Amino acid sequence: MVAPGDATQTVRIELGERSYPILIGARLLDDPAAWAGLPRAHAAMIVTNSTVSPLYAARLANALRGHYAVVREVALPDGEAHKDWACLNQIFDALLGAGCDRKTVLFALGGGVVGDMTGFAAACYMRGVPFVQVPTTLLAQVDSSVGGKTAINHPLGKNMIGAFYQPERVVCDLDTLASLPPRELAAGLAEIVKYGPIADMAFMDWIETNADALLAREPRALAHAVRRSCEIKAWVVGQDERESGLRAILNFGHTFGHAIEAGLGYGAWLHGEAVGCGMVMAARLSQRLGLVDTAFVQRLTGLIARVGLPVTGPALGAQRYLELMRVDKKAEGGEIRFVLIDGPGRAVMRPAPDSLVCEVLAESTAA
Amino acid sequence: MVAPGDATQTVRIELGERSYPILIGARLLDDPAAWAGLPRAHAAMIVTNSTVSPLYAARLANALRGHYAVVREVALPDGEAHKDWACLNQIFDALLGAGCDRKTVLFALGGGVVGDMTGFAAACYMRGVPFVQVPTTLLAQVDSSVGGKTAINHPLGKNMIGAFYQPERVVCDLDTLASLPPRELAAGLAEIVKYGPIADMAFMDWIETNADALLAREPRALAHAVRRSCEIKAWVVGQDERESGLRAILNFGHTFGHAIEAGLGYGAWLHGEAVGCGMVMAARLSQRLGLVDTAFVQRLTGLIARVGLPVTGPALGAQRYLELMRVDKKAEGGEIRFVLIDGPGRAVMRPAPDSLVCEVLAESTAA
Repeated sequence: MVAPGDATQTVRIELGERSYPILIGARLLDDPAAWAGLPRAHAAMIVTNSTVSPLYAARLANALRGHYAVVREVALPDGEAHKDWACLNQIFDALLGAGCDRKTVLFALGGGVVGDMTGFAAACYMRGVPFVQVPTTLLAQVDSSVGGKTAINHPLGKNMIGAFYQPERVVCDLDTLASLPPRELAAGLAEIVKYGPIADMAFMDWIETNADALLAREPRALAHAVRRSCEIKAWVVGQDERESGLRAILNFGHTFGHAIEAGLGYGAWLHGEAVGCGMVMAARLSQRLGLVDTAFVQRLTGLIARVGLPVTGPALGAQRYLELMRVDKKAEGGEIRFVLIDGPGRAVMRPAPDSLVCEVLAESTAA
Repeated sequence: MVAPGDATQTVRIELGERSYPILIGARLLDDPAAWAGLPRAHAAMIVTNSTVSPLYAARLANALRGHYAVVREVALPDGEAHKDWACLNQIFDALLGAGCDRKTVLFALGGGVVGDMTGFAAACYMRGVPFVQVPTTLLAQVDSSVGGKTAINHPLGKNMIGAFYQPERVVCDLDTLASLPPRELAAGLAEIVKYGPIADMAFMDWIETNADALLAREPRALAHAVRRSCEIKAWVVGQDERESGLRAILNFGHTFGHAIEAGLGYGAWLHGEAVGCGMVMAARLSQRLGLVDTAFVQRLTGLIARVGLPVTGPALGAQRYLELMRVDKKAEGGEIRFVLIDGPGRAVMRPAPDSLVCEVLAESTAA
């Protein structure tokens, strides 16, 4: 287990020539070793947001000055509502305005929105420049910074415009989690909880046992949760980088969750909050299809509530939920395909009758 | 040599699992064989522009209805001035508005702008859907539809936002060249002429001998020019898909040319016109660096003028040219790297002193 004072731990994503390490440890922002051996370039560009910039940008810039002649920064507005083309273009404007060439290395310093946008900007700028993920939220450390999914939102659907584009490295400095608002901590716990039902019920046992330690931000507990989450994600992504099959299981809770996010307007709920509630809905749908029993649904719902996440969805109306879910990226020919739990610890992707989905929505949304 | 009545010819791009054929022939739009064996999907989306749509979209849609349950169309405004995010987003709006899933196949029906934008849209929509190039201009058939470079422009630089993303197939129906305006024909000839100095002086001899036939759109001459151009491009791209070295030679004339396009505002000159003039400038720079003799420069300049292309650049001012060229994608650390002719038939990429570039600009631009 990693903790302050322990050595940095490494989880590797194995993708042939696109393989890379995830470094997990304390005080990594200031550790020269965390930034050694990256692609050489004249310039580095730190992409962050207005909340994270005053906390960590100067420290990262200092560390990078040992490796790059010029270190620049662009700070985007904070929040999912800004994960759009206009803000993506701020990154391009900054790069072109500074004359950045196609060897320039981008550093995504922030949460999932910053990571997804910086990764997509790196994929597109001059048809591809290297980038490094420096996630500062729990959600980004355990999920979104790992695996190369990058995107921006479209008014008609979440993460609809993007690329599979792998970073050179992921650097998870656990100390940055100390500054997280409680809502952001809970949102990150949603993606940690996710790994249990889809892949590792022993990890779910561990999370239940250590939920109080995680909520108290006990460093050893956070370190273990981040490392185990990254290990499971690395195992999945290593087998199916471009989501032709297995990787879709990581979207447990996301079909309902994305509908909540898009339906309420991006940013009203945090992504992790929507996923937490979406997992409850997906578990209930699994139960109605006879894949899991009621005890499992109650256990998962209890854990999600205990870590501070909503278990009741907004009253968008069942038809609006269905309409939003039909543009989900997993849908085919208008048929929604859900990630369901096929017995605890194993996920499956399959369609479900609208009537059952409506029953779940009636049970799981505000009146 | 391909001609009406001859069998369709095929040039293959060899890129491992991303390999694909370029079909070159007459009456291909209506030929069921040209569209067989593509990825299966519920829907196809034809992306075209307002000029090409009334000419060919219905014929392509008819041919595709044998393979796809739904065939949709989105027509963008015509011209390089519209190769921007706003028009790219029209493609996303059409796809999402129609509920198109991530198996949907896009068909780029038009010239280089339509091909570049459709390819980039395919690269990004739901993180990647398949697409087919159906080039209807000479320039697109001999150059831009082949090799997987996709992009949109940014106010500060041409093709700055894009992706390397290969099509499933390229279908060059030579009959579509009959409808080309003369300026577009000449613009296409610029990219054909390019292949001589950089790779194949025997092809340059052939172009000089057949210039009148090409200008008269003699089918056998056009067929040979398209096939030989695609063969040379296939040979280059097969060795260096992502332009880490060799592929840059295809940018002969483009460093100066992109500066002309961006400096005048996209669309004032056609891309091929700017490249034609840019080749004259690059040849003169090669001569001043002692790489080729004056006779070669005069020969190339003569051929470019003969096919109807400008050989004198606009008076942007030397400093503006230099400033625009410093953001070229081949530049590194602010140093412009030019594709130069290192003896007829062989290209090389190297920097040049600003003083020599200014001499070339003084000689090659309007007073």
